[in-house]
Amino acid sequence: MLRSCTAALRTLQALRGRREGVSPAARDPVLARRWFSTEKVIPKDHALPNPSWSKDLRLLFDQFMKKCEDGSWERLPSYKSKYTQKSEDFKTYFLDSKLVKEQLSQAQLFTRGYEDGLGFEYVIFYNDDEKRTVCLFQGGPYLQGVPGFLHGGAIATMIDAAVGMCAAIPGGIVMTANLNINFKRPIPLCSVVVINSQLDKIEGRKLFLSCNVRSVDEKILYSEATGLFIKLDPEKSLI
Amino acid sequence: MLRSCTAALRTLQALRGRREGVSPAARDPVLARRWFSTEKVIPKDHALPNPSWSKDLRLLFDQFMKKCEDGSWERLPSYKSKYTQKSEDFKTYFLDSKLVKEQLSQAQLFTRGYEDGLGFEYVIFYNDDEKRTVCLFQGGPYLQGVPGFLHGGAIATMIDAAVGMCAAIPGGIVMTANLNINFKRPIPLCSVVVINSQLDKIEGRKLFLSCNVRSVDEKILYSEATGLFIKLDPEKSLI
Repeated sequence: MLRSCTAALRTLQALRGRREGVSPAARDPVLARRWFSTEKVIPKDHALPNPSWSKDLRLLFDQFMKKCEDGSWERLPSYKSKYTQKSEDFKTYFLDSKLVKEQLSQAQLFTRGYEDGLGFEYVIFYNDDEKRTVCLFQGGPYLQGVPGFLHGGAIATMIDAAVGMCAAIPGGIVMTANLNINFKRPIPLCSVVVINSQLDKIEGRKLFLSCNVRSVDEKILYSEATGLFIKLDPEKSLI
Repeated sequence: MLRSCTAALRTLQALRGRREGVSPAARDPVLARRWFSTEKVIPKDHALPNPSWSKDLRLLFDQFMKKCEDGSWERLPSYKSKYTQKSEDFKTYFLDSKLVKEQLSQAQLFTRGYEDGLGFEYVIFYNDDEKRTVCLFQGGPYLQGVPGFLHGGAIATMIDAAVGMCAAIPGGIVMTANLNINFKRPIPLCSVVVINSQLDKIEGRKLFLSCNVRSVDEKILYSEATGLFIKLDPEKSLI
């Protein structure tokens, strides 16, 4: 729902920074805080190959990296987003602030919370001219529904992430208002699928998007979805 | 999508077994295999309180357990579902069978793959007369979208699980065909929400359900959804 907002904004900031040739820390205030703090933690970009990636995922990744060479496509970096927001900010809507303080210190982005290969392995590429994204996704063994297949919630999660990114780059800070998903065929666990998202229309603060999930050879249509996203005012509170 | 099928069937078997007063292992062939194997692994029922449960979740749990006393409601047990299906069965649609064999050996139910308190903490209660379920859900820090709030995919996952269970108990083995979710307000991380699901209509193999996600005091409507599920023939392959 709201995943796309800050993560996408940070990705966008990083991307714009890269285009403008400035240093990663200068582009991104969160990065900067970490890079120049005493902790010296350099965030890992998870949208890059690791040993858990299958041959299919690596081949597709290489194909899209080639498409990036002429600037028509861009690979979007992806971080765990260990935000620095203070837990005191959340006190107003939590009853047990001590418990919440402990728990929020462990908070991490849902789609990047697993060890390599166990959960969501994905990379998103963006085409600015066509206002569309392609997400290459390999769902690991911790995302199981019935034996051997992905949980519908894991598919919905990846659709939300991919469509949300396609909305957030042109739209800025956005929030998912509606997701309508048709699950047509079950997706085998540990296989690779391609999620194509497209910005169809903007009406005021509303962004209308559509999406399909296909096999690598494009022959199998696993899912289709539409998404409605709303542009938010970054100065206003979310609740 | 497909999560509800086998898990729900096993839950249903266990539930029916309980009603009939037979032993847990005799009710459920998967349990039986494990209980009487040399491994001697007793599956843990995750739909019971653990130290990560907040006061809100414990209070609601106790309230519903009281409602169970007259038999109008039943608590549904929930397991990690470490299925015994052979990885050889998956060879036909996986390119790299060695990799898949390794990965499938780690497979676990998406909603039960986290340590206590970090991911999905939930329990589902079922009312057979009214054909509805109530799911009490506390989303942990690993389910974060924007800072302090649940990821939309995590909400979609829990809706799929709750609505799917409401479909699977009367419907047998079912598959999610459509989920249409309106996200109305963001859900604070580590808070407790109540997911009410209702079977509205059955037409042939189609089951139509609706669902809402509310705060514990029912004052805040976080999300609304509809779900369409299809009854499957257990003898037929899923792909």
